[in-house]
Amino acid sequence: MSKKPFITITTDFGLCDGYDAAMKGVIYSICPDAIVVDISHQINKFDIMHGALVIASTASDFPKGTVHIGVIDPGVGTSRRGIAIKTKNYVFVGPDNGLFSLAAELDGIEAIYELKNKKYFRPIISSTFHGRDIFAPVAAHIACGVPVENVGPRINEYIKKSFSEPKVSKNSIEGIILHIDSFGNISTNIHKKYIEEFGLKFGDWIKCVIGEKEYKIPFVETFGKVQVGELHALIGSSNFFDLAINQGNAAKFLKVKQGVPVKLEKL
Amino acid sequence: MSKKPFITITTDFGLCDGYDAAMKGVIYSICPDAIVVDISHQINKFDIMHGALVIASTASDFPKGTVHIGVIDPGVGTSRRGIAIKTKNYVFVGPDNGLFSLAAELDGIEAIYELKNKKYFRPIISSTFHGRDIFAPVAAHIACGVPVENVGPRINEYIKKSFSEPKVSKNSIEGIILHIDSFGNISTNIHKKYIEEFGLKFGDWIKCVIGEKEYKIPFVETFGKVQVGELHALIGSSNFFDLAINQGNAAKFLKVKQGVPVKLEKL
Amino acid sequence: MSKKPFITITTDFGLCDGYDAAMKGVIYSICPDAIVVDISHQINKFDIMHGALVIASTASDFPKGTVHIGVIDPGVGTSRRGIAIKTKNYVFVGPDNGLFSLAAELDGIEAIYELKNKKYFRPIISSTFHGRDIFAPVAAHIACGVPVENVGPRINEYIKKSFSEPKVSKNSIEGIILHIDSFGNISTNIHKKYIEEFGLKFGDWIKCVIGEKEYKIPFVETFGKVQVGELHALIGSSNFFDLAINQGNAAKFLKVKQGVPVKLEKL
Repeated sequence: MSKKPFITITTDFGLCDGYDAAMKGVIYSICPDAIVVDISHQINKFDIMHGALVIASTASDFPKGTVHIGVIDPGVGTSRRGIAIKTKNYVFVGPDNGLFSLAAELDGIEAIYELKNKKYFRPIISSTFHGRDIFAPVAAHIACGVPVENVGPRINEYIKKSFSEPKVSKNSIEGIILHIDSFGNISTNIHKKYIEEFGLKFGDWIKCVIGEKEYKIPFVETFGKVQVGELHALIGSSNFFDLAINQGNAAKFLKVKQGVPVKLEKL
Repeated sequence: MSKKPFITITTDFGLCDGYDAAMKGVIYSICPDAIVVDISHQINKFDIMHGALVIASTASDFPKGTVHIGVIDPGVGTSRRGIAIKTKNYVFVGPDNGLFSLAAELDGIEAIYELKNKKYFRPIISSTFHGRDIFAPVAAHIACGVPVENVGPRINEYIKKSFSEPKVSKNSIEGIILHIDSFGNISTNIHKKYIEEFGLKFGDWIKCVIGEKEYKIPFVETFGKVQVGELHALIGSSNFFDLAINQGNAAKFLKVKQGVPVKLEKL
Repeated sequence: MSKKPFITITTDFGLCDGYDAAMKGVIYSICPDAIVVDISHQINKFDIMHGALVIASTASDFPKGTVHIGVIDPGVGTSRRGIAIKTKNYVFVGPDNGLFSLAAELDGIEAIYELKNKKYFRPIISSTFHGRDIFAPVAAHIACGVPVENVGPRINEYIKKSFSEPKVSKNSIEGIILHIDSFGNISTNIHKKYIEEFGLKFGDWIKCVIGEKEYKIPFVETFGKVQVGELHALIGSSNFFDLAINQGNAAKFLKVKQGVPVKLEKL
């Protein structure tokens, strides 16, 4: 029985210049049997919240053992560390800037390692493209069998962003807006598991404090359950708590942007 | 001799959010040996005609046995059925909304099944993302060897759009405009096989009734055979009958849009 | 030990219409074990300089033996030849229009063949899509073991663009601008190996004649080493000599476009 080496890549490189392909070339040169899957190369430039959301939305759909690379990396060329995070089912490889904290905390962190062992890097490291020179080769070696603990010393702390876990109490969940898409739909950092634990059911109404203002909003299965123009809450295709307006622009209506707090309370 | 499980995916999801990757994660979790190929994730949102054209243009280039998934699915979350269409060479999996009728009728339909057997779905089905929760796992199981008849009951009818076959008589072919690209080039639903059967040869002139108006147009091998600014007909890279203007915008010139009828007659 | 057949594809087709997928379908039909990697399908339409840069930036990251297909092909349907270029490590397959001259000269050309042997083409060749009908099947056959010399007669000359090699002397390097990205960053045809041979070190200042004007510019490891608004030179992620302004638009500031000569001299 063959256990295949799966690797995913998420970046803000766009699809024009072949930078993602350079990473794949490096991966296949080390681990020719790898199955490499693009998650997205159209994360908003340098937008760690957006990248964190997309990685956390998608990572858990992949086979156990998949190595997830993320390169939204405004600090490349500075002293920021590279890390590999071993979670219950996956390994995340990339910059230590909070990009993985949402996905990794959801899956359950087992150990974190700093990428220090140059044996698994490319021989020459550029200052601008650690995706190709460090993260891709390290991920390829791990996917092809190198134990994750070989990549460098175990570390106890990493950059865990405040958005990596909502604050959950008996009566409320406090999260923030991670992303607003081109239709004005709003995605938060509140994973559906918190909504289920909270006991919210489709058809319930909730009190929702968004920024400074308070709203009464229906929690529905899909936008088809509300009127055109009606603000509603739902679990989006990303598995996170979303706010939307049927055929309208929720972000414009609510006058909110990325990073604004969202607090849910039962009615 | 290994027969590989090939799967293609066509959607209107765009490439930003990782939704196509979520489908791939599901596929690989079920069928790790699958070769998954993106046809397009940039079908115009909810545009079934556009999706039908792209799938019909590309499906037949793949190895016999390939499972083609399509998710242009404005009816997701409603009572629209999911189907698997077994054709002479392929299996098409997706919503029953006409998306496959052009490609499937071209290849020759052998049997149609409604997706009912939950054994091949994901355990929890969202209301918004059947691509990930139903179509991807069903396609993965079929590609990896589950007989297509196992996915649910055989049905006798499906949504066959009027655009799925042009009306062919001895003296004319009647079709419609399926897509206009960003250059104003016009693609119809008339596959090149109808043009060949009709006996049209490169260099012939044809009478072409487009919407309400009549034109005399040369049928050529490539735009290089006509003058700059000249309206002409050709078999495009999609294998369908196209109308174009050399270095011009045919749709603007003809004042036509998607869905407008096109009738060809010999001169 | 399995030697896998790697194939890359670079085109100006965009990602909307499934044309790249048609090529993949053809490849897999011939060589089911192929690993096919997209380098870019968003090369500027008909822009051979841009395509040449992206291919030369990425090709060398792939395993030895990879077959690189390129289809930026304004001459399709005319009498321009198709070629296969055997270099030290790779085979390049596509139109004979200079698209590969930068990458192939860098890797070292061993032999060039004209694509003439129809045995390796599709049975019917369109006038508009040689990527699918000629280049994809030829590349698939080569990747799957057909000796490259079988594809047609060896030829002594091919279209070698003036941009394929900068003019290097003891005191200067003369190149040209190949591409300006959407941020106004400038990429030249001067590969980093020429910069290294020239003896330039990070922190050095250079005299740079760009078009008609002369500038004194710092050569740095990364934009983080200069002030906001400062013009600087660096080796970009593409491995070529770039000009950029920290948080500014270098092309606008210098009033230059693609094709403008760039001459470097030591200070």
